Amino acid sequence: MTIVLSSDALAGLLDRARRDYEELAARGLKLDLTRGKPAPEQLDLSGDLLTLPGGRHTAADGADVRNYGGLQGLPELREIFAGLLQVPAGQLLAAGNSSLELMHDCLVHALLSVLPGAEARWADQGRVVFLCPVPGYDRHFALCERFGIEMIPVPMTEAGPDMDVVERLVAEDPAVKGIWCVPKYSNPSGVSYSDETVARLARMETAAPDFRIFWDNAYAAHHLTDEPVQIADLLAACTASGNPDRAFLFGSTSKITFAGAGVAFFGSSPANVSWLTANNSKRSIGPDKTNQLRHVLFLRDEDGVRAHMERQRALLQPKFDAVQRILEAELGGTGLAEWTTPKGGYFVTLEVMEGCAEDVVRRAAEAGIVLTPAGATHPYGDDPRDATIRIAPSYPSLAELEQAMLGLTVCVRLSGYEKMLTT
Amino acid sequence: MTIVLSSDALAGLLDRARRDYEELAARGLKLDLTRGKPAPEQLDLSGDLLTLPGGRHTAADGADVRNYGGLQGLPELREIFAGLLQVPAGQLLAAGNSSLELMHDCLVHALLSVLPGAEARWADQGRVVFLCPVPGYDRHFALCERFGIEMIPVPMTEAGPDMDVVERLVAEDPAVKGIWCVPKYSNPSGVSYSDETVARLARMETAAPDFRIFWDNAYAAHHLTDEPVQIADLLAACTASGNPDRAFLFGSTSKITFAGAGVAFFGSSPANVSWLTANNSKRSIGPDKTNQLRHVLFLRDEDGVRAHMERQRALLQPKFDAVQRILEAELGGTGLAEWTTPKGGYFVTLEVMEGCAEDVVRRAAEAGIVLTPAGATHPYGDDPRDATIRIAPSYPSLAELEQAMLGLTVCVRLSGYEKMLTT
Repeated sequence: MTIVLSSDALAGLLDRARRDYEELAARGLKLDLTRGKPAPEQLDLSGDLLTLPGGRHTAADGADVRNYGGLQGLPELREIFAGLLQVPAGQLLAAGNSSLELMHDCLVHALLSVLPGAEARWADQGRVVFLCPVPGYDRHFALCERFGIEMIPVPMTEAGPDMDVVERLVAEDPAVKGIWCVPKYSNPSGVSYSDETVARLARMETAAPDFRIFWDNAYAAHHLTDEPVQIADLLAACTASGNPDRAFLFGSTSKITFAGAGVAFFGSSPANVSWLTANNSKRSIGPDKTNQLRHVLFLRDEDGVRAHMERQRALLQPKFDAVQRILEAELGGTGLAEWTTPKGGYFVTLEVMEGCAEDVVRRAAEAGIVLTPAGATHPYGDDPRDATIRIAPSYPSLAELEQAMLGLTVCVRLSGYEKMLTT
Repeated sequence: MTIVLSSDALAGLLDRARRDYEELAARGLKLDLTRGKPAPEQLDLSGDLLTLPGGRHTAADGADVRNYGGLQGLPELREIFAGLLQVPAGQLLAAGNSSLELMHDCLVHALLSVLPGAEARWADQGRVVFLCPVPGYDRHFALCERFGIEMIPVPMTEAGPDMDVVERLVAEDPAVKGIWCVPKYSNPSGVSYSDETVARLARMETAAPDFRIFWDNAYAAHHLTDEPVQIADLLAACTASGNPDRAFLFGSTSKITFAGAGVAFFGSSPANVSWLTANNSKRSIGPDKTNQLRHVLFLRDEDGVRAHMERQRALLQPKFDAVQRILEAELGGTGLAEWTTPKGGYFVTLEVMEGCAEDVVRRAAEAGIVLTPAGATHPYGDDPRDATIRIAPSYPSLAELEQAMLGLTVCVRLSGYEKMLTT
């Protein structure tokens, strides 16, 4: 995106950006683009959950959902999500209200008890390393930091993580125990993994016998276009490649029904599911089956989920369109930024000029527009190019979003033109 | 309970017990006294939860309970349970559907991150030991086993754990990091801790600077008589004794509302609450606040909980009375057994003749009456006297319970008289 400007032209552009920023700051905005939270209208779509399960309290197998038990979760709910998450229902667990909890607990259990195929608990193996495709999800990185797991960034391509890099790193170091993946409509780039990427992840040689792919399929049904992306079936590919225990798959209804009161899922090989269930059995007498029954009665079947997600899309797509429209109108052709056009998920990645992301985020905050901290998309909060900004368009109203995006582009112009003048 | 019988008399009693057991076995019963599960009629008392929160989705502070956030749980729910659990609402967390999960997670976090007052993570301190008052709760012991935490049994008295033993063990060994306590209507003995026991636990000298009392106040409001037991305020006592961070308190509504879909609580000092919240913040974006709002609307206030627990008592007390009546009628004066008469909680402890518990449980199972495995009340499943049996009267109907109890007493007589004849 090299653009050559005369210094006069540049000075004029900077001048205009400065005036625009002064105006922006004077408006006293209070807008928030930080987190991928559903908007109230999206939550209203699942309003029936507030009165369900109604008079019912019996699962399909006769279990009383009000009482203890049923560690694997309701079979009928697992059936609904089996296809969407590409996991046979018998290998899928329905759990509590958060897939992040399941990822956390898988790390805990791997640290404190021996994984299938492992020679020892990770806590007894010294150094533990995870590969982190970047840009990525800050909460994944926070889990690694919390447990002292070393993170190695791997660049993302249009087809997923750079597999040449991944294959080299996993082959040469047995301390490399895992990789974080958001395979569909990735957080934050929107990239979906190609079939070839999935196949290579499944078959690659790893020095660690207990290597695991943490497959956070958070946006499995979260399409924004008429061409829903299909990703390859990782679990089947791992089995076919002779690495049946390699994949831990996660999903949830957090961005399908209620973000705070949904149901999370874990899927894997029979050996891994038995391992997690055995560990979970010490921790809990079973998940909230009443909430699971609520979801069964509300969503009904896989088609019910798809129809519901069309209603979600109707609310989200105008917001994502507005982001694209404003970015194109304000920054298109300036050479100041590039951005992604996701076909689903919750985020747009904005790449500003190298060295400008922190400055843009700071200036936006000073003008009342809160963004995810620059660097959050990278391990240890360290974006070496200081260029990546994550935009979360879902929560604000369309009008607020448009204001926030316009303000953000002012900051990008101001910071970018200043940078151009001083370098 | 020494009774002297002539060998003729004994032979006659054994003969009758054998005939009774044959009759019992011929009846092909299928009864279960294993777990402390609420009966369906108890769950029906909270039927309103199945349609709540109705149209509402806003907490008292304006938070949308359907969305992410609110890691500490709804303040209005914490207010309701603060008095019952003897924890200021500001130091009480409302979490998911299981207090066992909270205990598990406190162990995990203590193993993997440094506790307030600790010199290192427990995982880096080598041997970790917990004191286990016996008889006790098998799921506590299972957590210790799962994490390789060594367990030392401590005898229970009528006033709680034998504090002379506890004080000696905690003073002499810095590896002793914790003690499991069910302070009110203890599982399974029904004992409630005396004020003196609570005071001694709070003030005792511990060699470990990071010693914790795991205070599982599971039956705080679960009275069975007109004289509800009050226990002393452990948190206040710890603070007054200069050990403010010593106590981790746990509670839940599992046996108040729905056993599988209630709300669990954690209370402690501000430092411990901050420590747990910081660790939880990596694991979750917040608990199921919708279910918490459900509980607020249903229970309303502390008096609402008390009134609800009176309705629970009306269903439970006849069952506990039947247990006492049948034990007294069938085993009273025989010298074959002693048992507890709890004023609350979920269990009766039956102490049979030394060396007979396993035999009684096996014979009962063969006659179709399933009991908690003998030994389950002791660490590692090892009851050195082989005498303790836990009876859980809540789940069966009154008629089933009476059948099961009569059958159980037959097994106690058979096993006991055999023992008397051979020793």
